Amino acid sequence: MRLDLDPVLDLENAELRAALQRAIDQKTKPLGSLGALEHLALEIGMIRKSTRPVLEQPQMVVFAGDHGLVKRGVSAFPQDVTWQMVENFLAGGAAVSVLAKQHGIALTVVDCGVAHDFAPREALRVCKVAPGTADCSQGPAMTMEQCLQAIRNGQELVRGLPGNALMLGEMGIGNTSSASLLLARLHGVDLVDCTGAGTGLNSEGVQRKIAVLREALAANPDTGDALDALASLGGFEIATMVGAMLQAAAEDRVLLIDGVIVTSALLVAAKIEPRVLQRCIYSHRSGEPGHQYMLEALKARPLLDWGMRLGEGSGAAIAWPLLESACTMLRDMASFASAGVDGQAV
Amino acid sequence: MRLDLDPVLDLENAELRAALQRAIDQKTKPLGSLGALEHLALEIGMIRKSTRPVLEQPQMVVFAGDHGLVKRGVSAFPQDVTWQMVENFLAGGAAVSVLAKQHGIALTVVDCGVAHDFAPREALRVCKVAPGTADCSQGPAMTMEQCLQAIRNGQELVRGLPGNALMLGEMGIGNTSSASLLLARLHGVDLVDCTGAGTGLNSEGVQRKIAVLREALAANPDTGDALDALASLGGFEIATMVGAMLQAAAEDRVLLIDGVIVTSALLVAAKIEPRVLQRCIYSHRSGEPGHQYMLEALKARPLLDWGMRLGEGSGAAIAWPLLESACTMLRDMASFASAGVDGQAV
Repeated sequence: MRLDLDPVLDLENAELRAALQRAIDQKTKPLGSLGALEHLALEIGMIRKSTRPVLEQPQMVVFAGDHGLVKRGVSAFPQDVTWQMVENFLAGGAAVSVLAKQHGIALTVVDCGVAHDFAPREALRVCKVAPGTADCSQGPAMTMEQCLQAIRNGQELVRGLPGNALMLGEMGIGNTSSASLLLARLHGVDLVDCTGAGTGLNSEGVQRKIAVLREALAANPDTGDALDALASLGGFEIATMVGAMLQAAAEDRVLLIDGVIVTSALLVAAKIEPRVLQRCIYSHRSGEPGHQYMLEALKARPLLDWGMRLGEGSGAAIAWPLLESACTMLRDMASFASAGVDGQAV
Repeated sequence: MRLDLDPVLDLENAELRAALQRAIDQKTKPLGSLGALEHLALEIGMIRKSTRPVLEQPQMVVFAGDHGLVKRGVSAFPQDVTWQMVENFLAGGAAVSVLAKQHGIALTVVDCGVAHDFAPREALRVCKVAPGTADCSQGPAMTMEQCLQAIRNGQELVRGLPGNALMLGEMGIGNTSSASLLLARLHGVDLVDCTGAGTGLNSEGVQRKIAVLREALAANPDTGDALDALASLGGFEIATMVGAMLQAAAEDRVLLIDGVIVTSALLVAAKIEPRVLQRCIYSHRSGEPGHQYMLEALKARPLLDWGMRLGEGSGAAIAWPLLESACTMLRDMASFASAGVDGQAV
């Protein structure tokens, strides 16, 4: 075993599931009338093993890394935008910064492998494996040792976080390429179907991106192993997220999944430990075309369908209060009996 | 003119629209990458006439009324549930109560015409036109004088509310029947297509409901006038909401629309004053079948698609923080220039 993982236990518990459904059904409302909010409440109750779940000290961790593939022209933005956006996260001006602040979500930014040296800051964690991955159109993006180091970094990071809910975000110019590659490798989706504009390529740019990604698949033969796929086609921020997800699952944290990059890390984590998926809530369906394939592969029902494709964890931050509403409903609504309201007559 | 309305001005302003789009496009994110959140921010900016909109002192008003049609067996719950749920709203145990509290939304409950006498309470406003409408399968649900009184009550109520954003909710056993009838009358949708289970009828119950609603349409001939439709087929809570919407629009409040009953009131308000629609945000697509027809008629794009059908304003309360996120994005995110982030290269 190349990974040292804390055990992720099976959450399924028919008794708790029935107790949660009963609690939801006894609330003062017609049966099932809160739709997806009821489903969400049940899922959170199962993860937190309680009919009165409380989400505490929510954490948003934004994982940043650079990609050697960027020199092949797969992104509409230059590589320097990765470190510039890290500065923007820390200065409080990025989407995820203002949304996290709005909802009282603690924000941590992690340098997993940015091609830049940052001055120390309180909200910045430096777990830099290397200043950017290698160009995966010529061979593996990282060595297996680098990949395992990034995963360990993610595990370690989560061990030190307070709270019981984790949102993951990311920043890395070029990382929709890694997401498409991992989806193609792990689930056999054609690159033509799952490669999009990323930060804003035109259609010619997307065609060029697909051609480069084909080279990357060819340069890294399929071994059938998820860790090999991650090392050869992923990024340091994606590998660090894989470690973070595995550890968060072992601790029964609620994992609120963002868009296409975060979900690509989840594809890898779920190959390593499928029970991670029992802890996942899906914040939104991205406008990036690969995401729909990922959601289908994971049998996921996203909360929002807003055509967002920014990344950073912005979709998760926007969806966060919806999780709090589900818990509020489950904890605080009266039952027909407690409120003295008549039940269904017909 | 049977109604005395404050003027509702045309909000369209090409200059402001362009300024808002420019502000959104200059934020540190790929163009359009926040999807529906950007559209929402633009809409709120247009309503509040600002590129830095602030939503202040949000108000949830739950309008309650009883329906004479209930004696025909159109609901799965007994009529007493209307007043019992009003008590539940005031006691803090209903869905809308706990959700409003979660988000710091002020909650007011209005007795527009409940068949019950309530003890006075701080959060309760009594604007009772009569203790329930007449059975509209036998003739008009209310007289035109009653209908106009309810509309005036709604106008007066909103004039006294603080803040610049209004959510409307409702409670009234039998009121999905009124909603279906208004949709059928005002937009020609067949009752078979737009009549649903309401609080939980079985399929036999829905068939019986449709048959009763056909009687109601036959008993109240179409005059082509929206006020006549409202008086003959609506309810006191729906008519009071029509007045509230017209007044809120005149004051340029953001109107966050809930489900099928609230939207049926909006159908009437929009016939009286189409510019009301310029102030509307649609919180969700209801699981009640008529709602889809209403949203299409209004060219509305709902924020959530969760199959909710509880009413009370619960869907609006759940969606509320999404509006705050849109404003936060517009007000607080950095621009490429202010953050020192490079723009698009390709």
